Amino acid sequence: MLLLHRAVAPGLRQAYRLKSTPARLCIRACCTNDSFQPQRSSFTFSGDNSSTRGWRVMGTLLGLGAVLACHDQQCRASQESPRRYTREEVKSHSCPETGVWVTLGSEVFDITEFVDMHPGGASKLMLAAGGPLEPFWALYAVHNQPHVREILAQYKIGELSPDNKAPSILKTSDPYADDPIRHSALKVNTQCPFNAEPPPELLTENYITPNPIFFTRNHLPVPDVDPDTYRLNVVGPPGGQSLCLSLDDLYQFPKHEITVTLQCAGNRRSEMTQFKEVRGLQWSLGAISTARWAGARLCDVLAQAGHQLCETEAHVCFEGLDSDLTGTAYGASIPLARAMDPEAEVLLAYEMNGQPLPRDHGFPVRVVVPGVVGARHVKWLGKVSVEPEESFSHWQRQDYKGFSPSVDWDTVDFDSAPSIQELPVQSAITQPKEGETIGSGEVTVKGYAWSGGGRAVVRVDVSLDGGLTWQVAELEGEEQRARKAWAWRLWHLQAPLPAGIKELNIVCKAVDDSYNVQPDTVAPIWNLRGVLNNAWHRVHVHVAP
Amino acid sequence: MLLLHRAVAPGLRQAYRLKSTPARLCIRACCTNDSFQPQRSSFTFSGDNSSTRGWRVMGTLLGLGAVLACHDQQCRASQESPRRYTREEVKSHSCPETGVWVTLGSEVFDITEFVDMHPGGASKLMLAAGGPLEPFWALYAVHNQPHVREILAQYKIGELSPDNKAPSILKTSDPYADDPIRHSALKVNTQCPFNAEPPPELLTENYITPNPIFFTRNHLPVPDVDPDTYRLNVVGPPGGQSLCLSLDDLYQFPKHEITVTLQCAGNRRSEMTQFKEVRGLQWSLGAISTARWAGARLCDVLAQAGHQLCETEAHVCFEGLDSDLTGTAYGASIPLARAMDPEAEVLLAYEMNGQPLPRDHGFPVRVVVPGVVGARHVKWLGKVSVEPEESFSHWQRQDYKGFSPSVDWDTVDFDSAPSIQELPVQSAITQPKEGETIGSGEVTVKGYAWSGGGRAVVRVDVSLDGGLTWQVAELEGEEQRARKAWAWRLWHLQAPLPAGIKELNIVCKAVDDSYNVQPDTVAPIWNLRGVLNNAWHRVHVHVAP
Repeated sequence: MLLLHRAVAPGLRQAYRLKSTPARLCIRACCTNDSFQPQRSSFTFSGDNSSTRGWRVMGTLLGLGAVLACHDQQCRASQESPRRYTREEVKSHSCPETGVWVTLGSEVFDITEFVDMHPGGASKLMLAAGGPLEPFWALYAVHNQPHVREILAQYKIGELSPDNKAPSILKTSDPYADDPIRHSALKVNTQCPFNAEPPPELLTENYITPNPIFFTRNHLPVPDVDPDTYRLNVVGPPGGQSLCLSLDDLYQFPKHEITVTLQCAGNRRSEMTQFKEVRGLQWSLGAISTARWAGARLCDVLAQAGHQLCETEAHVCFEGLDSDLTGTAYGASIPLARAMDPEAEVLLAYEMNGQPLPRDHGFPVRVVVPGVVGARHVKWLGKVSVEPEESFSHWQRQDYKGFSPSVDWDTVDFDSAPSIQELPVQSAITQPKEGETIGSGEVTVKGYAWSGGGRAVVRVDVSLDGGLTWQVAELEGEEQRARKAWAWRLWHLQAPLPAGIKELNIVCKAVDDSYNVQPDTVAPIWNLRGVLNNAWHRVHVHVAP
Repeated sequence: MLLLHRAVAPGLRQAYRLKSTPARLCIRACCTNDSFQPQRSSFTFSGDNSSTRGWRVMGTLLGLGAVLACHDQQCRASQESPRRYTREEVKSHSCPETGVWVTLGSEVFDITEFVDMHPGGASKLMLAAGGPLEPFWALYAVHNQPHVREILAQYKIGELSPDNKAPSILKTSDPYADDPIRHSALKVNTQCPFNAEPPPELLTENYITPNPIFFTRNHLPVPDVDPDTYRLNVVGPPGGQSLCLSLDDLYQFPKHEITVTLQCAGNRRSEMTQFKEVRGLQWSLGAISTARWAGARLCDVLAQAGHQLCETEAHVCFEGLDSDLTGTAYGASIPLARAMDPEAEVLLAYEMNGQPLPRDHGFPVRVVVPGVVGARHVKWLGKVSVEPEESFSHWQRQDYKGFSPSVDWDTVDFDSAPSIQELPVQSAITQPKEGETIGSGEVTVKGYAWSGGGRAVVRVDVSLDGGLTWQVAELEGEEQRARKAWAWRLWHLQAPLPAGIKELNIVCKAVDDSYNVQPDTVAPIWNLRGVLNNAWHRVHVHVAP
């Protein structure tokens, strides 16, 4: 029962096909409900008196129409006076042979046909078979969305008997009850799991993002890890010994400290949605932040475990201590070549801006992979292993990949695209804000720019006229190290405004030291998951007279 | 006297300012010619009888107008019966104190004011002071362009006496006389130096470009190197010994073989010119080719010379054996970190597609820097040294850099931009050709895609409707190695055409494994040197009824 917004293809595609044929669904739903059978005959069209072939055909067609009309009426009838079930009846439908029923509130659904289409996989959904969905939706709060409820509604077969409405199972405690308290400035995308970003006003106030407003991307509840008993399992090479490292053990490795910008692949997804709907958290431009990280270098830890860079096509797999109800942990991987390269500076970080990691950011240990998408910076790190293939985690193989705009949930093949590692060049305007009215005379534009893979930002162009003419913004801070530019550049432009101008269409675009540039528009890079939006950022403002 | 099309800022900017004020120039030119002085008074307006201030002002204005008119007429007069000079008189004007004169054909020019504005530097131009330009323009054939002649025309002061027209200096032999014979299929951009590209029809016929049609980018005449006496000078570290390697010495290093695509920074410049004029060779889409290169790894040779990767900010400088009349060699550099990284596979190549390097491609030894702009793959390699700074070569510091569209020759600061090393993701359509009429029913689109820095091409999107909808092209050949995808992918798309369609606006765009994409349009990446054009490639074709 994985998040729908991280949906996998085959399931959702079929679900959507079903959604577009409500008549068929309605019939199916009705047919599973025996109580409507007796009524069916009374609507049967009696065209058998006619002796001509033409009449027979017409009669058959009319008869079919009548049957459909009958079913339509029955469905409406079922909504008006629904069939009642006991919790025991629901519970007896918990496998494909008997049919798979679930409840939500007082409603009963026969989801037998949907099980194999569930984006998170059938096995996850089957955990709820024969019982209420609530405990699972409490964990995966993203289910609480209109389009999920619409899909579910198509499978409704009735309601629970009035005396059965109280859940008959033990009340499941809220898995998010132990989540930490967050800063009120954060713009919350989802509370459970917690996903939130700093507002643009604060995002570029400091080169280093303060810990309390660093953007947070959680996939599951925040585990409560005891630092004294914490152990990191580093699996050794075949025939070798594994390491079981306490925090004190980790502190024994040389402490390495670097400033790294993390960005979620979904940063700026909300702009993609404006073009065409995508599935995912509606991040604005704040799913990016910068911190000073300190910890042991992954290459040092792997070397101590006996690993070498002999198998260049291998991958280092990470598992978090955050897990779902089936015990499946969050996981991701990076190529061994990057992990073993001292110049790539991959960290097992235990400090963030001079403090122990906050719980939301992976306490006590997280991976930091400079220049790489946030999804690989596994938090609450529990296990590290070297494998011949990428992590089999859902988030490595069935998510965080880019596709052509032509690919939809009917045609997507997740195996056809590489998992996102390095991210493309990015920039955004944090001041002024969309729709703002600014003073006349002069405008100050501010923002951030960053590129993946250690590529330095070498220039930011700003346009006030929608991209017709450009001015070069001033990059703040020092020039970045070649091949190791892990952190963003903040920038600003102060520009005089022509008298009488009423509005500005501000645009920014950055260039990195491989002279990669940002694409002009969103539509040609639109993709069904809404990741990798690095089109020019545009802000429209009014100028006060 | 470097190529004007590789022009440096301050000079050309001033030259262009002058160009826009022909009256002033004409006056100046006239004033340097004493023969016109006596005529001046006869045109002086006699407004001094008037006692009113208004009349005086008007008189002054009219007087000025008359003087200008006078000069204009004098200039025209000078064209009609030009002042005559002997070669000796010209020769006596060969330093700033006497004025700097030059000749071209029978015309004499006083270029004193232009010397400091010469894009290639004053010292190069001063080589021609007091004599004919022809020997220099023979070397730098790019001077033979209308806009260069226009600039020069502004400095004309007269003509050579009829009996002085034969050059009085020794006839300079053609420095390009020894250039090799080239394949007739090549589309020649300039003959001297030789710059040519394969036609689109042949470019993607083979994954490996045959040597005779591999695109050629020469900056100077092709040196004629004797392989028996050839020596490569590898400067040792401070206090160490330098190496002087014969070809046989180079063959003793382990032979390393890789397939690498080379691309000129100016590839597809002609499309940029369509938007707005740029300086440079008008490459179409063929300044890119792929070969199998073999040679010694640069890191092995540097290690043998005693170099280590201790100074990570250092650079490896290369000098070619091709040089200009002052003995200045073609030069370029790459970061030491790349040169010393065995995984970067930088070669001192002596074989191209199983053959000794052709002369046009650097016989007997050239540098091959996988994933990096062609300009750093120094041909006819003579010297390698490790320096604290980038090469001081014109081509490293005053050329092959990218700028904002807002930067023009008045404002350009070459120090403000990094030299191009890795190139951004690129793709182009080689079939069908622009303007072609194709058959109805189906279209086959073919092309190439490549990205710098070893980033693999993971997808090519093709649109037949100008970018509104997209189809994913089929990538040919095998999947590329992560981080070491040095060569292009050829691709094709076979697509049915709707009946009755009359034209197609075909577009392609590629994505690399850092999910970098190509920008939609040329204008926002336009730059004064016309480099780095990786906007979507567009081809418009007609469909036969």
